[in-house]
Parts: sequence; C-alpha cells; structure tokens
Amino acid sequence: MTKLSETRKSLIATALLSGLMIAGTAQAGLPDPGVDFTADDTALVVTDPQNDFLHEDGVAWGVVGESVEENNTIENLESLFSTAKDVDLPVFVSPHYYYPHDHEWHFGGALEHLMHEIGMFDRDHPLDTDNFDGSGADWHASLEPYIEDGKTVVTSPHKVYGPESNDLVLQLRKRGINKVILAGMSANLCTESHMRALVEAGFEVHVVSDATAAATLPDMDGHEAAMTNARMIANGLADTETTVEAMKALR
Amino acid sequence: MTKLSETRKSLIATALLSGLMIAGTAQAGLPDPGVDFTADDTALVVTDPQNDFLHEDGVAWGVVGESVEENNTIENLESLFSTAKDVDLPVFVSPHYYYPHDHEWHFGGALEHLMHEIGMFDRDHPLDTDNFDGSGADWHASLEPYIEDGKTVVTSPHKVYGPESNDLVLQLRKRGINKVILAGMSANLCTESHMRALVEAGFEVHVVSDATAAATLPDMDGHEAAMTNARMIANGLADTETTVEAMKALR
Amino acid sequence: MTKLSETRKSLIATALLSGLMIAGTAQAGLPDPGVDFTADDTALVVTDPQNDFLHEDGVAWGVVGESVEENNTIENLESLFSTAKDVDLPVFVSPHYYYPHDHEWHFGGALEHLMHEIGMFDRDHPLDTDNFDGSGADWHASLEPYIEDGKTVVTSPHKVYGPESNDLVLQLRKRGINKVILAGMSANLCTESHMRALVEAGFEVHVVSDATAAATLPDMDGHEAAMTNARMIANGLADTETTVEAMKALR
Amino acid sequence: MTKLSETRKSLIATALLSGLMIAGTAQAGLPDPGVDFTADDTALVVTDPQNDFLHEDGVAWGVVGESVEENNTIENLESLFSTAKDVDLPVFVSPHYYYPHDHEWHFGGALEHLMHEIGMFDRDHPLDTDNFDGSGADWHASLEPYIEDGKTVVTSPHKVYGPESNDLVLQLRKRGINKVILAGMSANLCTESHMRALVEAGFEVHVVSDATAAATLPDMDGHEAAMTNARMIANGLADTETTVEAMKALR
Repeated sequence: MTKLSETRKSLIATALLSGLMIAGTAQAGLPDPGVDFTADDTALVVTDPQNDFLHEDGVAWGVVGESVEENNTIENLESLFSTAKDVDLPVFVSPHYYYPHDHEWHFGGALEHLMHEIGMFDRDHPLDTDNFDGSGADWHASLEPYIEDGKTVVTSPHKVYGPESNDLVLQLRKRGINKVILAGMSANLCTESHMRALVEAGFEVHVVSDATAAATLPDMDGHEAAMTNARMIANGLADTETTVEAMKALR
Repeated sequence: MTKLSETRKSLIATALLSGLMIAGTAQAGLPDPGVDFTADDTALVVTDPQNDFLHEDGVAWGVVGESVEENNTIENLESLFSTAKDVDLPVFVSPHYYYPHDHEWHFGGALEHLMHEIGMFDRDHPLDTDNFDGSGADWHASLEPYIEDGKTVVTSPHKVYGPESNDLVLQLRKRGINKVILAGMSANLCTESHMRALVEAGFEVHVVSDATAAATLPDMDGHEAAMTNARMIANGLADTETTVEAMKALR
Repeated sequence: MTKLSETRKSLIATALLSGLMIAGTAQAGLPDPGVDFTADDTALVVTDPQNDFLHEDGVAWGVVGESVEENNTIENLESLFSTAKDVDLPVFVSPHYYYPHDHEWHFGGALEHLMHEIGMFDRDHPLDTDNFDGSGADWHASLEPYIEDGKTVVTSPHKVYGPESNDLVLQLRKRGINKVILAGMSANLCTESHMRALVEAGFEVHVVSDATAAATLPDMDGHEAAMTNARMIANGLADTETTVEAMKALR
Repeated sequence: MTKLSETRKSLIATALLSGLMIAGTAQAGLPDPGVDFTADDTALVVTDPQNDFLHEDGVAWGVVGESVEENNTIENLESLFSTAKDVDLPVFVSPHYYYPHDHEWHFGGALEHLMHEIGMFDRDHPLDTDNFDGSGADWHASLEPYIEDGKTVVTSPHKVYGPESNDLVLQLRKRGINKVILAGMSANLCTESHMRALVEAGFEVHVVSDATAAATLPDMDGHEAAMTNARMIANGLADTETTVEAMKALR
C-alpha cells in the first residue's frame, strides 16, 4: 500500500479536519443524512407489535419488559400509528408467527432456539386462527384498532428476523413507497434486521429510537446495540416526539 | 390476552426455572446451539480484508485501528485463512468496492455518506484495475497470498453492507456449503449484515469474535454491538483460538 | 473481437463436432444433467394446487382447463403427492392468495390485472379464513388429504409469481433440502418463476412436465413456453411416470 | 368447492362477456396495462450485450445467430441505447461473466453446462481484465461507445440468469428508478429472468420484443417462449420502433 498513500493520507487529513474521524468528536461529526418525509412515498412500518413482546403476560416480557417500560414503547407506538392515520400515511405491519412445522427445523441461532422453546409467537396452523385471539401471537390490544382498521397492510410473517421471507418489500413497492419510518419489536433483532434488509433493498429508512425496545441480558444491552447500528446504518434516527412532529408536517 | 395466559404463565415459569429468562443469569442460560463443522459442507467466509480497514494508511484506520489492534484482527484472520487452507476448507472472500457511478447514488445512510466522502474502497472502473494494486481497496498484504492462491473464491463486491447485492450465497450453494465460519471487517457493519443475511438464507453461521473489529466512536462501540447481536442471532460464536482448534479437528 | 477468435472458433468447432450446437441435432445434444434424488435432501414442491386453477368452477378454468385435462394434471399431482408420502420425502406447498389490501396495488402486469379483476385466489383477510373452505383459493379436494396431513409444509403465499415474497427457500433450507421436484400450477407463470428463483438460490430443480398445465391463448401456449424454458434452465425434466419411478427408488 | 360457486360462476361469466377469457379472443381481451415512461424514474436496462451472443465469432452464435439477424437485434439495441442517451434516461448494463472458480460448481442446469463447456463469457480472474479486450465476454463493438461513455452503470455480473446475484436492483433503486425498459440477450434466459426478478422486486417492466433474440433449437423456440411469458407477465411489451417513439416523447 505505497502508491496511493500520500493521496489517502491527505484525504484522511481532510476528514480529520472536518471533524469526521477524530474519535473524540466523531459522533458529532458523523454525517446525519436524515430522511425527508414526503406524503406520496413514505410509510410507517412496524415489526412484531405482539403480546409476547409487549404484554406483561407475554413469554418474552421477562427479558424485554424493563426496556419496554423505560422507552414507553407502547405509548410511542400508539403515537406513531395514530399520527400516521391522521396524516394518511400508509401503514404496514410485519408480524412474527411460528406454526407447528417451523418447530421441525433442523437448526437455529440462540434466540431462535429460545423462541421455539418458550412457544413464542406460536399459532396452530397457517390457515387457522383458532386460539389466536388474545394469544401471545396476537396484536397488543392498544394497537389493534390501528392494525385492524381495514387499511393497514398486514404482511405475511417473517420467520427468522428479517423481511427476506415475507412480502413486505413487494407490498411497499406496489404502493410506491421509497421511504420507511421504522419502529416495533425488538430493537436489535427483527427491527434491525428489517432496517438492514430495507436499506439493502434501496429504501431510505428512518428508525424511531424509543418506539422499540430490546432484551437486556447480562453484558448485553440489545437496545444499545441497535442504536449504535442504527446511527451508523440508517438514513435517519430520532425519537418519537421528533418523528411525530415531522410526520405532522405532511398534513 | 386472557384465554391463554395460564398456559403461557406456566411456560414462562418453566423457562424461568430452567434459568433462561432471569435477567441475572440469562446469558449463562441462553441457548448456545453451536455449529458442528463438517468437512464437506463448511466454508470460511471473510468480509472486507482490505487496506482501508486493516492498514494504518487506510482511510478508516482512524476509527477502527484501535479495535483492530486490540483484537489482533490481522493475525487472527491469518490464522483462520491458514488453517482453512491446511484442512482444505473452501474459502470465500466478499470484498467492498465503490466505482465512480456509485458516487451518483441519490441517498445513503450515515456511514455510506462517510465512505463515499473519504474515498473508501474506491476503484476507477468495474472493468479496470488500474491504480488498484496497493490501494485502499486492495487486499491487506499479509492476507493476499491466501486470497490469491487460485483457489479462494472472490465474489463480486457487496455495495452497502450485506451480500444481497453480490453472488456470495450462490457461490456457497453451488459448492454445497451449508455452514459458514464468518470473520472480517467490520464487525457491526458488513460482517454483521453478512451474518444476518446468511442466517435468513438458511445457513448455519459461526462468528469469530476476535477475527473482526469495528469503529469506536463516542458512546458507540461497534464491536460490542456486533458481539451482542452475534450472541443472540448466530448459531455459534467463539474466538479464533477455539475456532481454529475446531477447524483442525476436521483434518 | 479479433484476439481470441481463433481459439474461440476452435471451441465452437469442437462443440459443433460433439453435436451440441448444430441446430438440427442440438436438442439431442443439449446437456441433460439430471437430478440424482437422494433421500435426505430432496423434497417435492407444489405451486398453487388450488381450485381456481384445477376445479371446473375455478375462475381460471376457462383458460387452463383444456391444458389441465390434456396433461392429466390432477391425477399426476396425486401420484407425486402420494409417492412422496409413501417414500417419506418432505412436501412443501407454495399457495397463491390475494387479500383486500393487495387490490390496492398501484400497478401490475397483464395477468396480475386479470387475476385481480376476476377475484382469483381471493381471501377475506390474512388472519381470517371465513369463506375460505371450498373457495377458489382453497386446495383442490383430491389433493387436500396430502396437504393437510399435518406433515406437509404450507408456506406463506407468494404474491406475484415467484417465492421471492414468501418463506419457501428458508423452509427448504431449514430442513436441509438441496434438491427440488417441482410441479403445480401454472406451468409458465408461478411454477416457472419458482423454478428460476430456486435455481438462482442454488437448488437443483427437477421439473415434472405433465404435473402442471398452463393457459392456452391465441398464439400463446403457456405450457410449451414453460417446457422450452425448463428444458434449458432446469437441472432435470421428466414426466410424472418417470419421476415417480425415480422417487420410488428412494424407498 | 360448493359455497362460492354461484358467485364465482357469475364472475367468470362477467369476464367471459368482457372478452377476457374466451380462448378465441382472449389475447385481444388480455389486459395490456402498459408502462407510462416518466423522465425521472425510468431507465433502460440491457442484459448481456456481449460478443458471445451478438458477434458471428461468439461461441453461442451457432444457436442464436439466426434469431439475432431476424430481429435486427444489434441495430435495435443501438437505437435503444442511442435514444436513451439522447433523452437523458439512465442506462444500466447487466453483464454475464464466468471466472475460473465458477467452473468448480458442483451442479448446473442444461444451458449452464453448455456455457461452461464452450467457455462462454469466460474471464481470467475477477480482478484482472487481461485478455478481456475483444473477447467473447467483451461488449459488442457497436454498443461499446454507449456502455463506456462514463455514464452507463455497469453492474456486477449475474452468474446464472437473473439479477439475484448482482447489484442491479440496488443500483436502480439508489437512482430512484421504478420503471425499466428491458432489452438484451437472450430473450428467454437472462432477459426473462431479469424481467421476472424485477417484477417481483416491484418494478414496472416494459420488454422490447425485437431488441432481444434467443436460441432456436429443434422443437424449442426461445424467442417465442419469451414473448409468450412477457405478454403475460410484463407490464408492457412493444417493438423497438414503438418503444423509441415513447422514449422520445420524454424529451
């Protein structure tokens, strides 16, 4: 690496001078492109607004409940849903379900094993909603009116963490959506996998920092990991209050 | 959420008793499925083993250099490459390049903006390697002998962070690979996006914790974020020493 | 194109001599790699075994009925399902459903427009199977016992023609499947899009020529188009009788 | 299928009356949505404009040459490229290359075997263009000025037939493209796989019927198969003359 080093050193110098890369001031200097919401091609996308994450009887509440309460996740999701409906932004929900045949998979990651073990997001059959109402796989009651208003698009379930295995990208494109306001559960798993996959699919993604929450485990803070990655990868990152203000400006 | 709550509470109780979900002991109790390396369908995959990340003159050294040195990333990558070649595991490298036309993109995330701004991974033309030799986009010199041995598969470049825009998944499947030992740069960006996309594509993924490194910025530790997410999402996670031992057992 | 022309002309000559490229004998000479079915990693995949295609009251019967009868598609699908169950091959069904929100899409291709217009594969709601039983979206009665035996994996619906918008690829990989015996409806639309997408995802695909059927329109023979493309693209192509014999050899 | 049959029969009747589904008049009655080209989000995409298909010394000329001449494919591609440049439409080229490591794949379809066997699209190395100039993998000379004008986006190579293994979709989305005018080689293989994958990715696709060509083999007319499928699947289908007129209207 000899030939280009002078040019490159000069590039680095310029970057340093502009404050982008000095460790001590880098975040302030990190570019913050932002997403300019526009009425005709922006949508709200919410992952896993389901009881198993958000209800105190949900099977994952033990690991995510503290983070849900700290972030006021439920109230913030309500604000996002309600504002989106008020200003006529299309809303898409990407749920997480497991059917009996999914439990026959030959392998999985750590949290996949846990989810299967504790019956998270379980449904009886892909073509049967018996026992669904009020179950851990069902919508959190406070969000259900927004999801079941006859306008919200409920996609097929994602099956690991990302939308690679469902129709979210297609549904967004078939409605002309290019920009996504992203929220839901859980921050560093399904929400982040949706963020990354949507970015790879060429969407502009704005992540709502406190309309999500994550597992807190010893030495592992899922929400912090998600925010670090969202700050670096997403096009925009802001809290619910700021996001709702920007959405209202579309009216 | 009334009907199923008794059953669910009992499921949670079982999980709690088995130590999976008590915050204080959860990581110890978190499932650790692991990847059982097998000679005929396991491969080493390395992301971005390039000067801009790994050489002290590279344009990103200012933000990742400290982490590269702390992890001994270069030496650990050498160990993985060398062991894979010794035991005849197929090796795949997924590089990161930007061509002049990529700088015309209409939008990008924070780190995308930074990469374009500092000329990271820049090449002159997709069909021209003038000025490539020794550039920031070129392989780190200590790894080049392994990559250019005539056997390693060099995929097309990924263009954001993940392999969605290159041929890595196809190349792996066309060689019968189902299990991936994953390392390279940088931990929470390209390496993690590869981990997530490979998991969604149905591979078993084992992440090597110290054969990677990441940006350290104020309030943002990229390596820590990556390890939190790898521990939860990947099928296996271990350091280079442990991984190399497991690879050697294939001989 | 001067430098390599001598070498290339000689390559062409060799190919011509080996009978691969002389128009008059090319098909005989076209490589026919075939798929070697193996018990642990082969599956049967069936697209759209639904009333709207296969039942005389189905909304598409007017355009596909003749082809369904000529090919004995229903009987042949029964043979494939029945043989797969007998020899314990995993079976996956990829259905086609449209929900009310799908009719709000901003654009579509010619046959998409037609499907929406005639209410093909319509369901009332993604989380509701009211009015589903016996509808055009429901399984053809003769195939239902195989699909609803508690073992067959029913994927999420594909939404245009291919499995890009559902979980088929993930479901196959999570069960260790590398080879697919492909049949169902309709030959040049969903079945062919599944063939192409599965080939791109690195599966070996064997197409069953007469366990499918297609629209016959003036100057457009869907089945013929599908067979031309399957002969060129798939790894194997054979009729039901031959395929069933090869499946039985796995017992 | 009893409950809904009366409603469905009436739907079919309506469709029949409107002429959509009577075999004898169906094509005339088949919906023809069309793509309304718009200056800011439409692009020209060309697959495989390379010597091995288009030059009389190309290794595939023996099977496609007749169709290339009948369609005036080269002249029509020139018209499309030239018009796109005149009216400032972005142009994307998706090439096809095979590197030495690709010949180590464990399996392939019929035409994949043939391509590998005759050295089609062969390059020496992914990071080396020695011997490329004027080779079968190089651009056809008459199209090169348009492709190498410093503005055309040359994507990474696709590796089987579709863009699933390259960055075409990302490149289009990063430029705000929603509508694609599709042409190139060969009609029922790479071009059609691009058409299908782009449709699944939520683009509107207009196929140019005679700016493509295909293999003609005994009992297999690749161009005819492609046109049947394009008529049914694409959003628009027209010849070069009509397409060029519509493009010129954007000026």
